[in-house]
Amino acid sequence: MKRSVFFVSDGTGITAETLGHSLLAQFDNLEFEENTLPYIDTVEKAEAVVREINRVAALDEARPIIIDTIVDKSIRQVIAGANGYMMDVFDTFVEKLQTELCLAPTNTVGKTHSIVDNKHYNVRIDAVHFALDNDDGARTRHYDKADLILVGVSRSGKTPTSLYMALQFGIHVANYPLTEDDFDDLRLPASLREHKSKIYGLTIDPQRLSAIRNERRANSTYASLGQCQKEVRAVEAMFNREGVPFIQTTHLSIEEISTRIMATNGLKRRSLPI
Amino acid sequence: MKRSVFFVSDGTGITAETLGHSLLAQFDNLEFEENTLPYIDTVEKAEAVVREINRVAALDEARPIIIDTIVDKSIRQVIAGANGYMMDVFDTFVEKLQTELCLAPTNTVGKTHSIVDNKHYNVRIDAVHFALDNDDGARTRHYDKADLILVGVSRSGKTPTSLYMALQFGIHVANYPLTEDDFDDLRLPASLREHKSKIYGLTIDPQRLSAIRNERRANSTYASLGQCQKEVRAVEAMFNREGVPFIQTTHLSIEEISTRIMATNGLKRRSLPI
Repeated sequence: MKRSVFFVSDGTGITAETLGHSLLAQFDNLEFEENTLPYIDTVEKAEAVVREINRVAALDEARPIIIDTIVDKSIRQVIAGANGYMMDVFDTFVEKLQTELCLAPTNTVGKTHSIVDNKHYNVRIDAVHFALDNDDGARTRHYDKADLILVGVSRSGKTPTSLYMALQFGIHVANYPLTEDDFDDLRLPASLREHKSKIYGLTIDPQRLSAIRNERRANSTYASLGQCQKEVRAVEAMFNREGVPFIQTTHLSIEEISTRIMATNGLKRRSLPI
Repeated sequence: MKRSVFFVSDGTGITAETLGHSLLAQFDNLEFEENTLPYIDTVEKAEAVVREINRVAALDEARPIIIDTIVDKSIRQVIAGANGYMMDVFDTFVEKLQTELCLAPTNTVGKTHSIVDNKHYNVRIDAVHFALDNDDGARTRHYDKADLILVGVSRSGKTPTSLYMALQFGIHVANYPLTEDDFDDLRLPASLREHKSKIYGLTIDPQRLSAIRNERRANSTYASLGQCQKEVRAVEAMFNREGVPFIQTTHLSIEEISTRIMATNGLKRRSLPI
């Protein structure tokens, strides 16, 4: 039986969705139909949400689950009138925090995920541009300004990881692709050697690499399993020989690759969480 | 008085941090020192966390706040022994969900933010590469495969927004920079006209644009307030004349720009939440 779930928020919906998805992942033998309804910041919009939830409730065999992060009590009360099982995040936790902090909440709607301070915000935008400017070894002269330099063979996940770390944490990440030219002596390219403390390697299972490369260039030598095996073997030998820390990305999401590298490397976020 | 906060997780820490930051934002007249401790997945690591929390507790005037998303009860119990005020997310919500769903949780550690399914995961990576390949009007021939085409003047936020939507939602976003050449007749460039239903404009306050451009190219004509005013006036006139929907990005985060565009345009995420 499928259960419908509604993440309802007066802002972007990111908190409700992130938390809700984590909770539902604990029941992975059940199928959920997830809906995110952001910017529900008036009673009228909340009434429309209630109509939608009730419509789905009438179709489903069980009442929908509602996970909301709405600050305004009057809007929350409207949602509570829907035919669903409501888990109210702010109601649950803000009151506890209020008691602990001996302070009333300011009840600011849409406070999260909004720009509190341009200075902190620019950190992320600057980091995105840094990642793009220093993507794929395009330029190596800014490596002194990098917090981290990701190295690995083509399509091992360097670019998405750099961009995620920039957007999420404001970290300056350059990346450099290692190619066959670099494998002759199994030493790091000269442009990287002086920044060795910032270098982190990505590696990947050759089978998976071949599948990814085939999507880009089907049936090419570049995508062949033989080529992928050769490159991965060489790159791992280089990492070991040079003492470059590296991570196996095959079964990891960008979020996991990023946070694991930060945890092992002691890298801290530069931007405030948003 | 500053309060220390610890977000403790057995996975990436993203859920604990996102939720915790949302909750703390409700008390914006207090200063918080936020610490994220990911991958706390053994009793030994939990004991080290307790020592760290106790160390901070001894220095601070008030006990730290602990917000955790740890699945394993025995690890959670170790954390609960720290000198802090603990808000346990899974303990609070998973039991409620269990009752509602009439189903025991599978208690899988690190389930969120991990790759459940390569197919769904590739959607995001493909979307990142789509955004990069179609960034800044570099190529216009893939616009038929775009879900959205962002247009706006240089540095109005197109690239970071495209990348965020790719990473977070797996949406294929191209972007096209509008320059003075495009403002002669205030009509959309020919390459965009046939994709009009996918086009969304970004605009920005000229003062803020000038500040952003000055960081890139200080004291240039490009960054001058006069130039920014001229471009913004022209681009808004074009949007109005062509009936292109547009959003004012000046005070919005990338998260807000993205989710607002998706909400008004009816765009749905292509990837599962992760």
